[in-house]
Amino acid sequence: MNKIELKTPYLVFLGDANDLLMAKVAKGVAHWRPEKCLAQYRLPGAKADLGLAEMSPREAAACGAKTFILGLAPVGGTLPLAWIDILIEAMEAGMDVASGLHMRLNDIPELVAAAQRTGQNLLDVRVPQGPMVCGTGLPRSGKRLLSVGTDCCVGKMFTTLAIHREMELRGIPATFRATGQTGILIEGSGVPVDAVVSDFISGMVETLSPDNAPDHWDIIEGQGSLLHPAYAGVSLGLLHGAQADVIIVCHEAGRTQMDEMEGFSVPDLQTTIDINLTMGRVTNPDIRLGGIALNTVNLSEEEALAEIARIEKQFGVPVVDPVRTGVSKIVDGLTEVCYA
Amino acid sequence: MNKIELKTPYLVFLGDANDLLMAKVAKGVAHWRPEKCLAQYRLPGAKADLGLAEMSPREAAACGAKTFILGLAPVGGTLPLAWIDILIEAMEAGMDVASGLHMRLNDIPELVAAAQRTGQNLLDVRVPQGPMVCGTGLPRSGKRLLSVGTDCCVGKMFTTLAIHREMELRGIPATFRATGQTGILIEGSGVPVDAVVSDFISGMVETLSPDNAPDHWDIIEGQGSLLHPAYAGVSLGLLHGAQADVIIVCHEAGRTQMDEMEGFSVPDLQTTIDINLTMGRVTNPDIRLGGIALNTVNLSEEEALAEIARIEKQFGVPVVDPVRTGVSKIVDGLTEVCYA
Repeated sequence: MNKIELKTPYLVFLGDANDLLMAKVAKGVAHWRPEKCLAQYRLPGAKADLGLAEMSPREAAACGAKTFILGLAPVGGTLPLAWIDILIEAMEAGMDVASGLHMRLNDIPELVAAAQRTGQNLLDVRVPQGPMVCGTGLPRSGKRLLSVGTDCCVGKMFTTLAIHREMELRGIPATFRATGQTGILIEGSGVPVDAVVSDFISGMVETLSPDNAPDHWDIIEGQGSLLHPAYAGVSLGLLHGAQADVIIVCHEAGRTQMDEMEGFSVPDLQTTIDINLTMGRVTNPDIRLGGIALNTVNLSEEEALAEIARIEKQFGVPVVDPVRTGVSKIVDGLTEVCYA
Repeated sequence: MNKIELKTPYLVFLGDANDLLMAKVAKGVAHWRPEKCLAQYRLPGAKADLGLAEMSPREAAACGAKTFILGLAPVGGTLPLAWIDILIEAMEAGMDVASGLHMRLNDIPELVAAAQRTGQNLLDVRVPQGPMVCGTGLPRSGKRLLSVGTDCCVGKMFTTLAIHREMELRGIPATFRATGQTGILIEGSGVPVDAVVSDFISGMVETLSPDNAPDHWDIIEGQGSLLHPAYAGVSLGLLHGAQADVIIVCHEAGRTQMDEMEGFSVPDLQTTIDINLTMGRVTNPDIRLGGIALNTVNLSEEEALAEIARIEKQFGVPVVDPVRTGVSKIVDGLTEVCYA
């Protein structure tokens, strides 16, 4: 097995978070995978609330929880002693501990010792699980959709989670394939592609999305952008390994400067579409644009709908804001092509 | 320091190699950097010969050798006990040991213990040295040339080493920047980009090729191909991090199938040029094609010269076979533009 796999159900830890902005990952897990969340565990004074049952590690384990989810970073960056004790308690109660933090739980000797003593696993989901393999480029059965972007942080994960959910609601066989730490904690499995050694990016994405039934969709979370000066290599390896049949281009309406990249403009939609289709053809000659997901958070409702209509007319594919309009138009387009 | 750095001069180990094909890396080091090679060390029965003085580790260290170069893999793949003893002897004599092998010397407890005892370094040049940094895309002073390819194993390293040597002969300030294990052993420093975690490819190449004098050339060894189904992510991160002013496209005349990639055709030169210039513009809007290096090993002299002339006419840039014709035409073209 060379992807990360979390046992379910989860006990979701909220620490002493004051609001769900501090606990974004925990919120994402509870929002997208409520069926995997048995309960939440909060420290005294915490105001954030996922609306789940309140349980201690021991109570949750007794009710069948298998993994303790550490999805929020402590204030200040270092793990407080009290949290370490909680993680040890979780393992002693019989749970694995999964973390999406930058710091590695496996670098903390007390936690490693407790994991060995209890036989539980410390799962740092930012750390890829071996063995690493190189890409083959060989075609695989089943259908694949990949979100790509004009930039980082434009809604690629949200878009794919929403498309996956819409497909599930319609009874279309589909699997969400996570490629980043938040997506992995939400789905409970995946490959953190930006942490994979560069020789193996495509190969690990091939592994993440293996052969499947002809009518099955892998909905693959995108990363970065082919036109990003720092992270394009990740995006290209992901595109080639995914062998995407369909790309959904994600863009934030009105963003002109790249996120955290001084002096770099966000490329336009046409350029982004063209380069993704051109490069994607290397491993899938039939790759096509399935729609555009526009993040219109900074527009009024009226402006947003006008912008969506304008871009839809320009490109002739379904355009949505996954938050504002949902993604059903995109899924309509995919199923028309598939089942027509 | 986040690139690998080897101390000079070297004692080059040839083991019991029967010919220089078995000792390709050792041969490359002696060919391209004779000034760094103090001596060779051969085991009884070895027939391979670099034409260097013969010295044991103790003799070489006494004459000032600083690094013992292990550039050839043992037959069978595992390091024989006798070789381990030799590496320990080299460290005890006062040398670092540098290896380009797949297996890591730092995974062999006896060697690690000897390194600690002697204070010498075990340098696995396939393992990147931290700290890892992300790309910034910020412009850097100085000029940069990068070799790119239509495929793997078409002569990208050879081409850049030849251009670097030609520039040195002409007194043009230039540095060879190695990005693979053989190149690193030859140059004595570099970053093994295919072993860098994918988030950091561009950033580490930026580090490898820092600000320099306006008339100085960094001659950067390319890797893979933007159109390769397995390794394109490495190539793209390298292209973006290099911020190349000039690319030299490397191609093997007559190769139609990609190396070790069943079912994948080698892309044509025009496609390869176009995609590299398009993607390269993300971090250097002035990127241009400086020439084409054609590997004509499978053609007769007559065929080769005809093919070179044909391609030169087609693309209007200098076309060379670095082995057959040398690279002076390419360097002429670069210096005309620079110093005109």
